[in-house]
Amino acid sequence: MPAILLAVTGLDPQPWEARLRALAPRRDIRLWPQRMGDPAEVAYACAWHAPRGLFARLPRLQAIFSLGAGVDHVFADPELPDVPVVRIVDPDLTMRMTEYVVLHVLMHHRRQRLYDAQQRERVWREHEQAPASAVTVGVMGLGVLGRAAAVALRSLGFCVAGWSRTAKTLPEIETFHGDAGLDAFLRRTEILVCLLPATPATQGMLDRKLIRKLKRDGAAAGAYLVNAARGALQVDADILAALEEGSLAGATLDVFADEPLPAASPLWLHPKVTITPHNAAASDPRPLVANVLRQIERFEQGLPLEHVVDRARGY
Amino acid sequence: MPAILLAVTGLDPQPWEARLRALAPRRDIRLWPQRMGDPAEVAYACAWHAPRGLFARLPRLQAIFSLGAGVDHVFADPELPDVPVVRIVDPDLTMRMTEYVVLHVLMHHRRQRLYDAQQRERVWREHEQAPASAVTVGVMGLGVLGRAAAVALRSLGFCVAGWSRTAKTLPEIETFHGDAGLDAFLRRTEILVCLLPATPATQGMLDRKLIRKLKRDGAAAGAYLVNAARGALQVDADILAALEEGSLAGATLDVFADEPLPAASPLWLHPKVTITPHNAAASDPRPLVANVLRQIERFEQGLPLEHVVDRARGY
Repeated sequence: MPAILLAVTGLDPQPWEARLRALAPRRDIRLWPQRMGDPAEVAYACAWHAPRGLFARLPRLQAIFSLGAGVDHVFADPELPDVPVVRIVDPDLTMRMTEYVVLHVLMHHRRQRLYDAQQRERVWREHEQAPASAVTVGVMGLGVLGRAAAVALRSLGFCVAGWSRTAKTLPEIETFHGDAGLDAFLRRTEILVCLLPATPATQGMLDRKLIRKLKRDGAAAGAYLVNAARGALQVDADILAALEEGSLAGATLDVFADEPLPAASPLWLHPKVTITPHNAAASDPRPLVANVLRQIERFEQGLPLEHVVDRARGY
Repeated sequence: MPAILLAVTGLDPQPWEARLRALAPRRDIRLWPQRMGDPAEVAYACAWHAPRGLFARLPRLQAIFSLGAGVDHVFADPELPDVPVVRIVDPDLTMRMTEYVVLHVLMHHRRQRLYDAQQRERVWREHEQAPASAVTVGVMGLGVLGRAAAVALRSLGFCVAGWSRTAKTLPEIETFHGDAGLDAFLRRTEILVCLLPATPATQGMLDRKLIRKLKRDGAAAGAYLVNAARGALQVDADILAALEEGSLAGATLDVFADEPLPAASPLWLHPKVTITPHNAAASDPRPLVANVLRQIERFEQGLPLEHVVDRARGY
């Protein structure tokens, strides 16, 4: 039976392997690097930041499954063979990301950091508070994660706009697309949520020029940014400059170009920045392994793989 | 034309008066105390913590409208005359409360205070995170505010249970009621949200005995409490003791027996307590004045007032 190879770095392979063995006891499960066996027997790779060049050494590889949101770690391999790369689309991962986005949008909307500072000073003072219906949240990236976050924010009453590379429609959410639609989207956005994939086209997109286009004529002194996508999209120095000049009133960053975020980064202790350790949507082996095995089963029955990445776009 | 009296303390009457005049330009609007005129001409009182005994001095009073969530401030008047007391039920107020509840439940669920502490120490460490679907939030009080919060939490994936004095049913939410149902409700609740009215029956209800019944066998070291109802419900010393012993892992308190919370309160600087200045659901004059005027218009057309309080229950 064609073997499944688990090839991960930066996370503990043990629960993934245990879950694979538990759910597919008759399968031949291999673990890179210690129990890889004959590379020619591997048909499927379950990967998270696998070492570059590994896939090219698997002559009978049929598909690569990414074990977390995003496939940029796969496409970073310059020797990537021509096999389907499959994104994880799983309700568990989607719900986790929605929790994170809703939490951090509400923290900005309800001025939680201002109230935190007041609490430290024992200050009891209420500030004017716009209702969600008077605030526009803009979600960049309308894939499965972006759509779910947009719908959850809409149901809390926010005016939600969405932007994506290609045209998409969503009920009750105004959508914009492409370079031509970007400025109009930004100009109406007070809280910007980034859920775009990391591709050559999105590299460094969250820069000062973009931030300065955000709407800032509300109760807030500036706009807010939540980046739960990839660190490659943001220009740290520009975010700091935007916070300094006031075009940005606050930022929540879950991702960074260098992870873990180096101790020397001025982002760590900036009073207007909330840092989380790339935990917006953790991959839980339980639902995700079941998801991958379902796909393999479908594939072996001759059905097409779902959520295969478009290589030209990179997502 | 029968006059409308605005009688408020603890908040600025100016925007309320301006809104009343703007939306009802032909109405006779009076302002306590400076422009009250002849008390016998007052038919309606729009009140927020009006001085005790005031209503009894209005011989032709037809109805009292509370300008915020809760009517305990009205029933605190020992000379309250026998006229209908009307609660505010308004989508604006309800949405604001839902924002607050969702924000603070998510802050506890996603361990935001732990990540805040890590950020101050420049620590990049991810902690195990249960999905919302593995966490039970219990909402006490299933009036308009409680039901809206419960539905919003359910749509984020939480297991939601509800408790109310009298039996209520809600789709996808397990409900409990009365003294007989309280323990079963508490035993399955990991994050407790209190939205009960302040009545003699709920006074001091959030005590150590109740907190100790909450579920605490999850990833968290104890349960969490969000009180956005009234300070009279909570026993501050018991909350502090519960935090100390670990039966409570964290608390968000928007309300206190004494407001503003005295500077000497140990709650202010407790690392596991989040304090907000009774701002969970601010009354916005714009939608709420329109709501009250609509009710007066209905009443004068001979239609019954909506949302009249049951005096025996006090809500």
